[in-house]
Amino acid sequence: MTPVELVSTERDQNLKTVMALMGAQARAAAAALARTPTKKKDAGLLCAAMVIRANAGDILEANAKDLAGARAKGLSGALIDRLTLDDARVEAMAKGLEEVAALPDPVGTTMAEWDRPNGLHIERRRTPLGTIGIIYESRPNVTADAAALCLKAGNAAILRGGTEAMHSNRAIFEALTEGFTAANLPDHAVQLVATTDRAAVGEMLTGLNGAIDVIVPRGGKSLVERVQSDARVPVFAHLEGVCHVYVDAAADLDMAIGIAVNAKLRRTGVCGAAETLLVDEACAATHLAPLVAALIDAGCEVRGDQATRTADARVTAASEIDWSTEYLDAIIAVRVVKGVEGAMQHINTYGSHHTEAIITADQKAADTFLNGLDSAILLHNASTQFADGGEFGMGGEIGIATGKFHARGPVGVEQLTSFKYVVRGSGQIRP
Amino acid sequence: MTPVELVSTERDQNLKTVMALMGAQARAAAAALARTPTKKKDAGLLCAAMVIRANAGDILEANAKDLAGARAKGLSGALIDRLTLDDARVEAMAKGLEEVAALPDPVGTTMAEWDRPNGLHIERRRTPLGTIGIIYESRPNVTADAAALCLKAGNAAILRGGTEAMHSNRAIFEALTEGFTAANLPDHAVQLVATTDRAAVGEMLTGLNGAIDVIVPRGGKSLVERVQSDARVPVFAHLEGVCHVYVDAAADLDMAIGIAVNAKLRRTGVCGAAETLLVDEACAATHLAPLVAALIDAGCEVRGDQATRTADARVTAASEIDWSTEYLDAIIAVRVVKGVEGAMQHINTYGSHHTEAIITADQKAADTFLNGLDSAILLHNASTQFADGGEFGMGGEIGIATGKFHARGPVGVEQLTSFKYVVRGSGQIRP
Repeated sequence: MTPVELVSTERDQNLKTVMALMGAQARAAAAALARTPTKKKDAGLLCAAMVIRANAGDILEANAKDLAGARAKGLSGALIDRLTLDDARVEAMAKGLEEVAALPDPVGTTMAEWDRPNGLHIERRRTPLGTIGIIYESRPNVTADAAALCLKAGNAAILRGGTEAMHSNRAIFEALTEGFTAANLPDHAVQLVATTDRAAVGEMLTGLNGAIDVIVPRGGKSLVERVQSDARVPVFAHLEGVCHVYVDAAADLDMAIGIAVNAKLRRTGVCGAAETLLVDEACAATHLAPLVAALIDAGCEVRGDQATRTADARVTAASEIDWSTEYLDAIIAVRVVKGVEGAMQHINTYGSHHTEAIITADQKAADTFLNGLDSAILLHNASTQFADGGEFGMGGEIGIATGKFHARGPVGVEQLTSFKYVVRGSGQIRP
Repeated sequence: MTPVELVSTERDQNLKTVMALMGAQARAAAAALARTPTKKKDAGLLCAAMVIRANAGDILEANAKDLAGARAKGLSGALIDRLTLDDARVEAMAKGLEEVAALPDPVGTTMAEWDRPNGLHIERRRTPLGTIGIIYESRPNVTADAAALCLKAGNAAILRGGTEAMHSNRAIFEALTEGFTAANLPDHAVQLVATTDRAAVGEMLTGLNGAIDVIVPRGGKSLVERVQSDARVPVFAHLEGVCHVYVDAAADLDMAIGIAVNAKLRRTGVCGAAETLLVDEACAATHLAPLVAALIDAGCEVRGDQATRTADARVTAASEIDWSTEYLDAIIAVRVVKGVEGAMQHINTYGSHHTEAIITADQKAADTFLNGLDSAILLHNASTQFADGGEFGMGGEIGIATGKFHARGPVGVEQLTSFKYVVRGSGQIRP
């Protein structure tokens, strides 16, 4: 198996033909994967991990080509960081494959079963989703991570990574394929769209004539918005993470400082990073200044409302747009609100329904917050940075869904499945 | 509350404005409904049932206007049957509301919970989906059924019924609204798009600026296909039910005849009606002729392959198109296949992944069929006509989903929910 190439000069027609072929191959692979035993899937993942380690040199060489191209194009430092592989990152990919192999296989498990008065026994049983199309940007490790999660859940995968990572993705894909083939997995379990033609994304979004069951966009806002607006198949929606930490009047100050600093600064580039700190007016006199000072001392820029600027002269003025901005950087917006209801009102107005935390020793205030807000993840006395499939015990994730359909929050192997009903009778007919 | 009317001559702009307003009202209602206690929702349903009974005369009078219009337009007998209300059908609507009131409320229930090594307690808790847009055709009872299921699951509903049923739908909607208002439910919990302008459907499919979370199309193939191709929000896909009954070599003949006749003829217009009968060649000599005779004697037209025509001279020739046709009528296609593998191959080639049954006393053949096929519902020794939310014990359904995303099979109140994660800690920060 080699990545699909486009050789014809009749580009558009050829692209459609090639993509349709990939769709048909994925559909055949998905049918075979749905019946592939756990041991064989796990063997494929372990073999792939071995090949990734053995091919580390080739992968880093390919990555060097991508990096040279990215530098020649003058791409940003943040993008080059995401694109860069090194020994540790290659080892992390291999280890990730082994971790997915160690996860329980969701396929075939009974989700629920019950008997009907007429003697029918009904079972809801997990099945693979089918074929998953993944459209991603510069991180080459997604090639291995996404392929592994899809395979474990019995799905075929069609991967379309960023143009700037094409050499790296191809080298990783070749290692995966070598490993999967060694374990006798079905052909085309994973396919890589190895063209830089952006029209390939458009073809994937049409669903390839029914061959793609779901699209997972992994990348920045513009990619996700394009996918959500153009896709003709279901999408694991992942919009922004405008996440909030609300410090209630009954919050322990040390705990609040620890969580606020961690939620904002542990990693600023993840979607679960806090972007806005809300402080109850009832504790502003005691809590606001120390919270702001701790953030500034830790290297964070603070943009605040009038009360926050009064509490610390280093705070700059927040504008309306700050309340709904996902900085993904060491910047935080801070505002004083009227208790838990005021916090909820702010979050409902400006938030993105991703992840919000309340810090309080008041159980009633916590329950109001946890019950009343409709975000994918709501935390009490814990950092928003726990918004992660691994931290939830799901063993890796393909993304965090902010939509309410099918999956919400971390999307792990279980969320990459569907189900069917198996009904056993003894000759029942319906009256 | 009255149904939304369009009065301006500047139609398109006005339509957009009115629909956007409905979306905003639905969003506000959904937020309130998410917090509405079970008792209040159930009281609304019981009040609405009372008003439907009290207003039966008005509803039938409105229905008579629709029927007169339909006859004047020369609409088909089948359509007029679906459109027609009588005392029994009005009573069935009222009873349906009471049955939904008696169902357990899924909202707020814990779907799963677990502890993490760091002490975090994670709970996955059911929440409403938000606002559900329902686009349906001639059956006026959908107005009451769909509104009830949406309300029970804490969702706001925007209903758009068929033009030919507009007077009936409006009368039913007014009764529902009167009942919901009497129980002090939030305003605009249910809204009816009371324009015959088809552009209203297009507006709903855009999602009304994020206000509609999911679209449920209920109707014929062309409606469902239009919705699936044009919708910018998730859709509960419901395509055709090309359902199969496979009679295996080890089938008891009497059971096979009973199930085949019931699966095809109990009601031919439902999506779970069998459309194709597959008979194992190993029992064709003994089973084929009696099966075909029983179907023909019960008033069914049989179209068959060569073997079936040889078995009974009354059988006409099936063409390739018959194998993938959803007749929704007293017609069945019959074919002899090579055992369970042959049956599965036929079903994978021509089926629609809706509902299939195997009749056999051979447990191994049954398991091969139940494990190997990927349809929403697979039955062993039972009629395909059990493909129904009520028969599954779900207490009513808004449709049968054939997609693999979110819900599959009967869509009842539980399937009209989403979930959120509630995480409780004691100051945890992420290392």
